[in-house]
Amino acid sequence: MKAKKPESLSSWDIVFPNDANPIGTMFGGKLMAIMDEMAGITAARFCGRPSVTASTEAFIFKNPVKVGDRLETIARVVWVGRTSLVVKVEVFSENPVKNKKRTSCTSAHFNMVAVDDNGKPTQVPQLIVGTDLEKQDFEVAEIVKNQALIRKKEVQKIRGIER
Amino acid sequence: MKAKKPESLSSWDIVFPNDANPIGTMFGGKLMAIMDEMAGITAARFCGRPSVTASTEAFIFKNPVKVGDRLETIARVVWVGRTSLVVKVEVFSENPVKNKKRTSCTSAHFNMVAVDDNGKPTQVPQLIVGTDLEKQDFEVAEIVKNQALIRKKEVQKIRGIER
Amino acid sequence: MKAKKPESLSSWDIVFPNDANPIGTMFGGKLMAIMDEMAGITAARFCGRPSVTASTEAFIFKNPVKVGDRLETIARVVWVGRTSLVVKVEVFSENPVKNKKRTSCTSAHFNMVAVDDNGKPTQVPQLIVGTDLEKQDFEVAEIVKNQALIRKKEVQKIRGIER
Amino acid sequence: MKAKKPESLSSWDIVFPNDANPIGTMFGGKLMAIMDEMAGITAARFCGRPSVTASTEAFIFKNPVKVGDRLETIARVVWVGRTSLVVKVEVFSENPVKNKKRTSCTSAHFNMVAVDDNGKPTQVPQLIVGTDLEKQDFEVAEIVKNQALIRKKEVQKIRGIER
Amino acid sequence: MKAKKPESLSSWDIVFPNDANPIGTMFGGKLMAIMDEMAGITAARFCGRPSVTASTEAFIFKNPVKVGDRLETIARVVWVGRTSLVVKVEVFSENPVKNKKRTSCTSAHFNMVAVDDNGKPTQVPQLIVGTDLEKQDFEVAEIVKNQALIRKKEVQKIRGIER
Amino acid sequence: MKAKKPESLSSWDIVFPNDANPIGTMFGGKLMAIMDEMAGITAARFCGRPSVTASTEAFIFKNPVKVGDRLETIARVVWVGRTSLVVKVEVFSENPVKNKKRTSCTSAHFNMVAVDDNGKPTQVPQLIVGTDLEKQDFEVAEIVKNQALIRKKEVQKIRGIER
Repeated sequence: MKAKKPESLSSWDIVFPNDANPIGTMFGGKLMAIMDEMAGITAARFCGRPSVTASTEAFIFKNPVKVGDRLETIARVVWVGRTSLVVKVEVFSENPVKNKKRTSCTSAHFNMVAVDDNGKPTQVPQLIVGTDLEKQDFEVAEIVKNQALIRKKEVQKIRGIER
Repeated sequence: MKAKKPESLSSWDIVFPNDANPIGTMFGGKLMAIMDEMAGITAARFCGRPSVTASTEAFIFKNPVKVGDRLETIARVVWVGRTSLVVKVEVFSENPVKNKKRTSCTSAHFNMVAVDDNGKPTQVPQLIVGTDLEKQDFEVAEIVKNQALIRKKEVQKIRGIER
Repeated sequence: MKAKKPESLSSWDIVFPNDANPIGTMFGGKLMAIMDEMAGITAARFCGRPSVTASTEAFIFKNPVKVGDRLETIARVVWVGRTSLVVKVEVFSENPVKNKKRTSCTSAHFNMVAVDDNGKPTQVPQLIVGTDLEKQDFEVAEIVKNQALIRKKEVQKIRGIER
Repeated sequence: MKAKKPESLSSWDIVFPNDANPIGTMFGGKLMAIMDEMAGITAARFCGRPSVTASTEAFIFKNPVKVGDRLETIARVVWVGRTSLVVKVEVFSENPVKNKKRTSCTSAHFNMVAVDDNGKPTQVPQLIVGTDLEKQDFEVAEIVKNQALIRKKEVQKIRGIER
Repeated sequence: MKAKKPESLSSWDIVFPNDANPIGTMFGGKLMAIMDEMAGITAARFCGRPSVTASTEAFIFKNPVKVGDRLETIARVVWVGRTSLVVKVEVFSENPVKNKKRTSCTSAHFNMVAVDDNGKPTQVPQLIVGTDLEKQDFEVAEIVKNQALIRKKEVQKIRGIER
Repeated sequence: MKAKKPESLSSWDIVFPNDANPIGTMFGGKLMAIMDEMAGITAARFCGRPSVTASTEAFIFKNPVKVGDRLETIARVVWVGRTSLVVKVEVFSENPVKNKKRTSCTSAHFNMVAVDDNGKPTQVPQLIVGTDLEKQDFEVAEIVKNQALIRKKEVQKIRGIER
């Protein structure tokens, strides 16, 4: 299996009235659904296999999104293991009337697993990490993954279970 | 503002064909949207104020959900700060034909912020932590929150920015 | 098949702009769809079998629901026959900003039929009717069912058909 | 206000996978939502005013609908009072491949109220009842309305309330 | 296969907040989806076979549609070939409060193909063109079809390809 | 107002069971809605103004799309007038399991109009047509626009109207 350079995918959406809460800002959950779909598409194109979400970490809503905003969702593979990979997804909002303003509103790490025809984990290509930004993203992904391992152990201690 | 005991809210859904990927399991993003709506409702009922999602952590998909499954989503406030609160949300699946099997499939922590009539953060009631489970959940929420602070600093170091 | 006590199920929803008519109140049909889903889930959990809606009676919209309201839908089995059962569903609305007001807005009786693997009606457990409220609900369900039988005969007379 | 003849409105839909339960037949609630929208349109066109649903009675699911079926929904005003009117709605299914079979699957009575610009009940035109079918439908609507009044009193007696 | 007279089908919709862009008028794409569904139903009922959209031409948005408007979509077969047919679809809007105004807002030609059980094109009935309007619609459909043929050749010349 | 080079926008979607007809291929209307949204976003970003669809021409469904396919929609401004512009939109499908195959399935021309704050047509930037493909696309857009003008006159002659 040949190592691959990561490819950035972009997707566009418009925020509809049904996507917002009573105080007029977009529901976090609607953004999460958009970002998860792009994480899945990006991972699947990298692996050549369907990929499912195992977990997400550091899902941060930095700036609110308003009804009528245009959203660009940008996703890229930033880390790979043997059968798993991390996709970083970031969403930018633009106001279509006051066209100038572009804001980073949300970002997250998606831990994805590539699956074979029986739904079992299957090997993924190695990732070629080239630019400075790609190196930074790789390091951040390592921190996020390590924290998840530490947390798992501490939670088991608190709960008094093995699992 | 009087301290309050947490209340568990429950909600039910059926998994539709449109909620699943081509290999037949439910999209993570659809589950995230359901869970975020319940986090918002639970936080808002605790605070008596609309509440928005600031971030989510430890969003873990333990077991796959299938089309036709019944889902029960259970949410409870597990930690409070001055204007923010943490809602733990867990989703269980049941198969309507083979009725017996009930599985915990997903869990997550939602960091919510209560907002006043101008959309600004506003004070929330203190939380009365009573049972053993409530104490465990409180401790786990502290770990999750601390990790987020540590991560923020480490990421800023890697990115070479202040922000 | 063992007789069972009824269990109340609860589910939560937020009313979106698309759920309302041009004068700002929620469409009856959207409420009906939410209530039917809960009737189906409640009947299926009582019977351990998928259950389909045969008819609804006395679907009464007492108070209007507004966009942004939180809805709690509460469903319980109130009557059982050999293969059919009646689920009473009631919806309460809460305004998330003026948090105090809780209003009963809609209630209805759903006549459900439990089905086997071939989609044919199948036996359901007997219902243990215990509390005063459960006894009242049972009596009301009997009235609703009797009226439907009387109506059927009168309609056939008017239409001049046997059917 | 001039008396009016009733007009039949027709609408078409296709049944999608998301409209059906795990055993492959269309959810009652989805049909209810389609029928309520047509009841509202039909009442509003008759009155020249927006109209809201006050209650539905005798909502009967005679024959199951399958995914892929074409549905024709036919609605007509069958009875009028001073500010309220009854719309009868019937749904027919057709299979697009085996094109011949057309089946009446569902029918219901919708009690609608016409509202003025402040959302208050407002007067509706008188109904000209001409054909034999229109006379039958009028008589059936009277039975349904009378039963609802009787039921209301009996329920109040059982509940021991005035309301 | 017997020649057939065309039948006009009608369908009704209400325009929801999610159907409109930030300047308050209905998205063209939402209208297109409604009209395509009606073109498919109308073609399928004429042929007695499922029918798929091959192309659309002259999709003209004459007057804007507003949120809350009632829409009537009217579709009729206006031209037939051996395995293909043209359905003309027109949409009218009505304002439910100012009930009087009815406006033709959109019209289009849909080129449909009837398919057999293997998804291959299959023969369609001949069309009986009777009234003056039907004759005009037939002539217009011929112009639209001829322009598409001319355009195809000119585009191939510009692109320098055969295809 | 400065002349601008065109920018290609890309967006990704997954085809869901609800997007397909009973013979398993994606509804034309669903594709049309996706493409119209991208035409609107692309025109608005070019003009710095909200843009509405005036008409579409040559909407051609070349190859069927299946449930589970990934879709990439690519849109670019290919022609501009004073207040109007033409956006060419093309959709490619990919099968996520047999990852290799990529197919052009649909293409269309959207005639868009940029609008000011009162919804009136407003001036758009001139277009810099550079590459060979851009020149071809410009010529094709001219043909499509000319045919629409010719068709309009011929239709008026047939209908015997001025309008």
